[in-house]
Amino acid sequence: MRLVDQRQLPDRLAFVLCRDHRQVGRAIRDMTVRGAPAIGVTAAMGVALAAKRSKHGEKAKLLADVERAADAIRATRPTARNLFWAVERMLARAREAADEGRDITETLVAEAQLMADEDVEANRKMGAFGAELVDDGDTILTHCNTGTMATVSYGTALGVVRSAIAQGKRVNLIATETRPRQQGARITVYEALSDKIPTTLIVDGAVGITMSKGMVDKVIVGADRVTRTAIANKVGTFMIALAAKYHDIPFYVAAPTTTLDLTGEPAPISIEERDPKEVTEIGGRRVTPRGVKVFNPAFDSTPLGLVTAVITEKGVFSAEQIQNMAET
Amino acid sequence: MRLVDQRQLPDRLAFVLCRDHRQVGRAIRDMTVRGAPAIGVTAAMGVALAAKRSKHGEKAKLLADVERAADAIRATRPTARNLFWAVERMLARAREAADEGRDITETLVAEAQLMADEDVEANRKMGAFGAELVDDGDTILTHCNTGTMATVSYGTALGVVRSAIAQGKRVNLIATETRPRQQGARITVYEALSDKIPTTLIVDGAVGITMSKGMVDKVIVGADRVTRTAIANKVGTFMIALAAKYHDIPFYVAAPTTTLDLTGEPAPISIEERDPKEVTEIGGRRVTPRGVKVFNPAFDSTPLGLVTAVITEKGVFSAEQIQNMAET
Repeated sequence: MRLVDQRQLPDRLAFVLCRDHRQVGRAIRDMTVRGAPAIGVTAAMGVALAAKRSKHGEKAKLLADVERAADAIRATRPTARNLFWAVERMLARAREAADEGRDITETLVAEAQLMADEDVEANRKMGAFGAELVDDGDTILTHCNTGTMATVSYGTALGVVRSAIAQGKRVNLIATETRPRQQGARITVYEALSDKIPTTLIVDGAVGITMSKGMVDKVIVGADRVTRTAIANKVGTFMIALAAKYHDIPFYVAAPTTTLDLTGEPAPISIEERDPKEVTEIGGRRVTPRGVKVFNPAFDSTPLGLVTAVITEKGVFSAEQIQNMAET
Repeated sequence: MRLVDQRQLPDRLAFVLCRDHRQVGRAIRDMTVRGAPAIGVTAAMGVALAAKRSKHGEKAKLLADVERAADAIRATRPTARNLFWAVERMLARAREAADEGRDITETLVAEAQLMADEDVEANRKMGAFGAELVDDGDTILTHCNTGTMATVSYGTALGVVRSAIAQGKRVNLIATETRPRQQGARITVYEALSDKIPTTLIVDGAVGITMSKGMVDKVIVGADRVTRTAIANKVGTFMIALAAKYHDIPFYVAAPTTTLDLTGEPAPISIEERDPKEVTEIGGRRVTPRGVKVFNPAFDSTPLGLVTAVITEKGVFSAEQIQNMAET
């Protein structure tokens, strides 16, 4: 399995080859691959790889290998719903194949490929639904990266922008830098300039003044998990939502239904804390004195009340509709 | 005149020698010195240096030299009220000395020194007033740098923290990184660790989740200008104020009265835009693809309605009291 090494963007477009599920797990954990939908499909590919690599022809032992790999992959990162969804779907297919006497490995390889295709299809549909919300001449602010690099292809929030442009609408993009890992400055700007989308880069702290100057018509971000009460997304999203609310600017979340986690009583979303070095070092260079403590949450949780609507591949849903949606 | 080169902190504590007002102007413009109160006193020293360096013994010509220098220094940066206040005060003294037949140069040197002493005194008094608002065990979030490096000594918001600690209160500090120039990560952490204040560093986007996790009791920031309607301060302050309001966390501004700009009908505050390289490069290393546009405001404007109170050397004033204060 070949992945773009997103840590090296925009300096170079390098690829990483994953030969087994351990290498896939490492690629998710160290953020060679990132973005909730991309993580989901990568995890599925990892489970399929585990089946391919298993030395056991015997069904029960092969299944045990697949389950061990699934556990390892599930343990890489806690927040993205798509990771857990993908692993569970793969495990269910493996068990069905075993029960029905079909080839487990072939089933899993086909299923992972199907999930990759479905993601592209979902992005295209999300793009079409979302594009209806975009007006000609809009300036759209986005956070982190939600494009080709965050998905299998096309993108969620950036997919909506791409669809609107494909409809002939003129759209300007404002990309936030997105500290600490700068996915906005590094990856969104890279994708947007490749697509010739007029793009302005700002630091995360400048969202408020950018809005108060009337420079933003809409916000569209992605999500790592959507529950009945909140949206988990890249750290900083919550503050952008607060600023959008204050300025009466629509705040949209674009996410495939694989990101929804609609259990009855939503627990607080588990927010991953990452290496302090992401904050204390930039490009390997230390930017703060040694000895300081660091709090480095990778995500934050935006109350659904601050969200205008969630754009999915099945349509656009208001916060109220999400709250009342049937359990998935 | 000797200044700490703040651009080099925390890597090294280097000094810059300014021999004339042009060098002083450059030091303000390129942010060798920064922080509204520090800029004010540095500007006053620059005007005094212009008098000392003037080759003209004759009063009118010396005064003309001083006025030219004052104009040049005033043109360095647009937002900090203290800069304009300091230059105007120095010009008034120069004209008085000329009218009254006193030595202009001696008068200006003494006045600049007096302003430096007054700043330290104001910080100490602000610290004492502000410390009354701090409870034992509080965790205080601050933005940018408001300590010794932002003033002549002691600090505004950081001075309040220092005063509370001097009273025997236990105080934890949360410092925001403060992109793009990282004055929080570089300078506030440097000062706080030197003073052994327990300090946690976060990226600017993490303020919201830090508050929603209950980790912040109060916010105290400085200001570059306080009008009857808004507070100008380092970019990002506005979003911190919005997050504080949402979480019902007191949001205090610590600023000497030299920062107040209480004209009858406040104009929108002029917000300086700085070099895009502050955003596109970190430590001389490019972090985003070439060709992207950048919007890089150095400050933002926080509506006074989001401010709990302004701590000055003359006492603590509510937003309402500031709105109704006599013109200064």
